[in-house]
Amino acid sequence: MALKTLSKEETHAMRKRLIGQSCRLFYSDNPVKIVRARGQYLFDEEGTRYLDCISNVHHVGHCHPRITEAAAAQMDLLNTNTRFLHDNIVLYANRLASTLPRQLCVFYFVNSGSEANDLALRLAQQYTGNEDVVVLDHAYHGHLKSLIDISPYKFRKLTGQKEWVHVAPLPDTYRGLYREDHPDPGQAYADTVRDLIEEVHEKGRKISAFFVESLPSVGGQIILPRGYSPKVAEYVRSAGGVFVADEVQTGFGRLGRHFWAFEQQGEDFCPDIVTMGKPMGNGHPLACVATTEEIAKAFTDNGVEYFNTFGGNPVSCAIGLALLDVMEKEDLRGNATRVGTHLKMLFRKLQSRHHVIGDVRGVGLFLGVELVTDREKKTPATKTADLLVKRLKEKRICVSTDGPWENVIKFKPPMCFSVDDADLVVSCIDGILTDLEQNCPDLEKDNIGRD
Amino acid sequence: MALKTLSKEETHAMRKRLIGQSCRLFYSDNPVKIVRARGQYLFDEEGTRYLDCISNVHHVGHCHPRITEAAAAQMDLLNTNTRFLHDNIVLYANRLASTLPRQLCVFYFVNSGSEANDLALRLAQQYTGNEDVVVLDHAYHGHLKSLIDISPYKFRKLTGQKEWVHVAPLPDTYRGLYREDHPDPGQAYADTVRDLIEEVHEKGRKISAFFVESLPSVGGQIILPRGYSPKVAEYVRSAGGVFVADEVQTGFGRLGRHFWAFEQQGEDFCPDIVTMGKPMGNGHPLACVATTEEIAKAFTDNGVEYFNTFGGNPVSCAIGLALLDVMEKEDLRGNATRVGTHLKMLFRKLQSRHHVIGDVRGVGLFLGVELVTDREKKTPATKTADLLVKRLKEKRICVSTDGPWENVIKFKPPMCFSVDDADLVVSCIDGILTDLEQNCPDLEKDNIGRD
Repeated sequence: MALKTLSKEETHAMRKRLIGQSCRLFYSDNPVKIVRARGQYLFDEEGTRYLDCISNVHHVGHCHPRITEAAAAQMDLLNTNTRFLHDNIVLYANRLASTLPRQLCVFYFVNSGSEANDLALRLAQQYTGNEDVVVLDHAYHGHLKSLIDISPYKFRKLTGQKEWVHVAPLPDTYRGLYREDHPDPGQAYADTVRDLIEEVHEKGRKISAFFVESLPSVGGQIILPRGYSPKVAEYVRSAGGVFVADEVQTGFGRLGRHFWAFEQQGEDFCPDIVTMGKPMGNGHPLACVATTEEIAKAFTDNGVEYFNTFGGNPVSCAIGLALLDVMEKEDLRGNATRVGTHLKMLFRKLQSRHHVIGDVRGVGLFLGVELVTDREKKTPATKTADLLVKRLKEKRICVSTDGPWENVIKFKPPMCFSVDDADLVVSCIDGILTDLEQNCPDLEKDNIGRD
Repeated sequence: MALKTLSKEETHAMRKRLIGQSCRLFYSDNPVKIVRARGQYLFDEEGTRYLDCISNVHHVGHCHPRITEAAAAQMDLLNTNTRFLHDNIVLYANRLASTLPRQLCVFYFVNSGSEANDLALRLAQQYTGNEDVVVLDHAYHGHLKSLIDISPYKFRKLTGQKEWVHVAPLPDTYRGLYREDHPDPGQAYADTVRDLIEEVHEKGRKISAFFVESLPSVGGQIILPRGYSPKVAEYVRSAGGVFVADEVQTGFGRLGRHFWAFEQQGEDFCPDIVTMGKPMGNGHPLACVATTEEIAKAFTDNGVEYFNTFGGNPVSCAIGLALLDVMEKEDLRGNATRVGTHLKMLFRKLQSRHHVIGDVRGVGLFLGVELVTDREKKTPATKTADLLVKRLKEKRICVSTDGPWENVIKFKPPMCFSVDDADLVVSCIDGILTDLEQNCPDLEKDNIGRD
């Protein structure tokens, strides 16, 4: 690794010149140059340590030695494509199968969550013979052309809504159509999907799939209300469509007790297709689609090969297997539950002292803290969220925002995040919010911290 | 790596059960289980060695220790996403820029050739404001929904031709519209694209891009005739479109003298967008789009971020840099020229003795041998090609077929392929063809080896 070392300024100048500007930097005013990382810590070129609350991809911790060992050992041995028989792909598929309901027993390995969602769309359309897709408002399912089409978060800013795409309300019980005070928001939101499907049918069109993140992330860390998914699945299936659970952000135990976030909707609930990605290879490009025998068969019956050059290669699968081993050995799901519960409890306490915290939600190490200027009107406190992210950077803590108004502070750290890390983050946020309340009362025009 | 070892039968049974059957195996009657590889050699579970003439992805040789070292060192250090500044991505982009014409100076890193072509399509459509695409007959540009739409090789078997896709004749001077005897096939084939664009305009539609592999591979290792690409680029640009060179299979010096296959069309010829993939990471999922400042600017101006979770991460870029180092240090382009020229000369000699060899074509280590039952009629000798592949497997040599009739034997081995390897392959093919001529004269109904 005798690479030339550049100053941060040189790196930034070369980046501006050589990399498409659409590829954005965190903290674009003054980006951070990270040169090494371990566990939940990032280190910049001067050795300054940052606590990482962002990197859900680096699931078992940055640069975990077991993952590196597994990758290097397999790279030294073999890394062909899947047109040859190999143990890793079948052992890995078998291992994933053991985490899923029995029906989800056929696997396709790909290189990114986007490739997985694109393939899920192909599977759904091929199986059902229908074209149309229902998605949730504000959803994001990937950067590919086909996925921008089914991502309101993107298509509204780009090519617009296609005639085969239909947007259902985000089942947000904090600020959506039906809220905590509704007797059965799960049923009520599911019925919006039923009504939408009826509208689609009236247009003479037919549904191939309902796509949903099991805990809508870009939408703002939304917890689907109880009973929502089984009911939607029932409506979608009777319309001839399939239920696709996008677990790219939420899978692999991030929620702690449940390996897959869709399990929160009840033991009997099973999607027809599950897509997975980000945390799967701890940073290595690895993703997957799991589906039923029936759907896989319909895809095979078209007689056309599906070949993905790198997907499911022995190195990717060795890394995937090593990640599952590490998760078990280090009880990272248990840690996600313990630390996540502690962190959520701390945020709830903070909420009682800072009125800008409108809502605290999420499960395990996938939490969202929604900031509002006014708890009644729920006006998004976007500027406060932005400033909080910047101030936390000064405290050497990396967090990000999400949600339609970028007012939800997101926590999705590596799964080795500790109670001490949680304490530090919350104490820093407490200090920053107190300071903002005292010194920047006009930040959001309406004062923050007072309602 | 204490993975359980399975017998070949167990592996095969698990594969059938767990992996989508659309993911096909080589030698599906009796697939091969490969457990390790080195250089241009594959080894099965019994230690039997196969000479690999297929694995263009494993560009500098299977499991090259320098690539593994670079990957492991970087994996141990850092593997974040590109929202942080990092040297590897900019050093790698700079290195790639030095291989390309000056205009192609902005880079987007992704995880597969398919992701690269999908992004190229987005760039072209955004820049031109047009939608329609012209592609060559039999072309294949990837497995994603958007790319199946522009791949006649796939869409003819699946969803059919979309109204925004237009298919130009494959400029095949062996069996196409205009052949070796035409005074200027480059101009003649380019004029078919000009005529097609006129038809598109008559429909009130507009061209965003002409997509072409710089040496059409699935089409049957077709050498674009001299002058074709510059002329097509001229027509496409005057229609408001851009020229996309798909170098996913042909780039990175596979052709020897030229680093990029599009360079064969003359020093002055420069595409507007170049996509790259397969060999780029020696098996690691790594791919890229290179384009001009103008096109990148139009993509940025839409105000929407392009974020690819794994694309351009420090490990991928370390591997990409190491691959370029190995290519230079081991003079693999020189080797491709020397061994490729020798192999082509041997095939030409073989052609003089076996009438089933209708054509020998290609450059460097990207060669095609087209088999025909009749040199006048050029009837594809598909069964002979199929049998040749199977017999070569018995001789422990892996080759594959391509072209619309699967009658073109393809050679795209790792770039460390040697003169001795070439001699062995050709001598085996000689023996097999001689045997087929003597013992299976009715294989293709018409006798082979006699015209």
